[in-house]
Amino acid sequence: MTPQPNPERRSERARRAVLDAVFEVARAKGYGKTTIEAIAATAGVGKPTVYRWWPSKGAIALDAVNDRIGDSMDFPDTGDIVADLTAQLTAVAAMLTGDIGALYRGIIAEAQSDPDLAAALRATFLEPRIRRCVGRLDTAVAAGQLRADLPTRTMVDILYAPVYYRILLGAGPEETLRSPLLVETVLEGLRPS
Amino acid sequence: MTPQPNPERRSERARRAVLDAVFEVARAKGYGKTTIEAIAATAGVGKPTVYRWWPSKGAIALDAVNDRIGDSMDFPDTGDIVADLTAQLTAVAAMLTGDIGALYRGIIAEAQSDPDLAAALRATFLEPRIRRCVGRLDTAVAAGQLRADLPTRTMVDILYAPVYYRILLGAGPEETLRSPLLVETVLEGLRPS
Repeated sequence: MTPQPNPERRSERARRAVLDAVFEVARAKGYGKTTIEAIAATAGVGKPTVYRWWPSKGAIALDAVNDRIGDSMDFPDTGDIVADLTAQLTAVAAMLTGDIGALYRGIIAEAQSDPDLAAALRATFLEPRIRRCVGRLDTAVAAGQLRADLPTRTMVDILYAPVYYRILLGAGPEETLRSPLLVETVLEGLRPS
Repeated sequence: MTPQPNPERRSERARRAVLDAVFEVARAKGYGKTTIEAIAATAGVGKPTVYRWWPSKGAIALDAVNDRIGDSMDFPDTGDIVADLTAQLTAVAAMLTGDIGALYRGIIAEAQSDPDLAAALRATFLEPRIRRCVGRLDTAVAAGQLRADLPTRTMVDILYAPVYYRILLGAGPEETLRSPLLVETVLEGLRPS
């Protein structure tokens, strides 16, 4: 039996090829010099195909990062908030210094002058993750492990900010490795009194 | 007496005109769409003059931001570290949401793909300010107002990170205004035990 051509499957294959291509091109040229042309060529699809699905390079990169991370950064719940936060923030810091991080830094950079990309970054990437983190912190507040007088949403900001700050302002991996100490310190401010 | 032409003074006038022009063009078009051409035209100087002094748009913007801020963000020392940190961080947050902030966000964005600009940002802008902050924190540690078991350099990261995080990842001015609560919370983790 000859397989019937399946346009949906072909589309999905092209989509995956583009998402892989943005990593490949960025690794070779740096994200700043990555172009839609190069992404399309590497993926073996036409530029119109790319533009049919994504409005910009940043939008492709955001999709690629979201897809690659999936739920691998999800919040563990071992019952011990200090261990869980340390594990999760260490994973985020490691992610931000690798291939995914190079793309992610590029997306944040472009978002500074592209409001649509900034909105997509918040809606599809940050907000779902922040909500999951808030959920984990709420559990810890309910268990008396964290202070109850500060919105857990604000706690998320305090916890994640140093990781972003170091990556975006040029502190290298060496600094990032100190993040467990950071977490401990920040957590002292979040303990119930 | 007819004033003699003074090349040095003329140079300084042109330099100032360029530094003012980058603010003016960015205000009108947004930093992302600001070009060296537009900056030169607005400043009334030739493009070669601009390139003689600065290698890139980001380098002009960095110079302009540094010049505009001057020592206005310097660290107060009233003897009360909580009051001083709150005052200084509130000033930084306000600065980052205005005209200077728009340029500064653009510089950080470009620095993600321009290593020379990233190095200049650290050397001419961040490091001198971090050193002054470390100096103020060292005084507070010596006075027993802050814990002595954490490098003051790490404290700087923890304190400033949330401000950058909110600005770069799209939390608006409303969020930024909560920074005093942030400072208080973070400081609880920095108190001597």
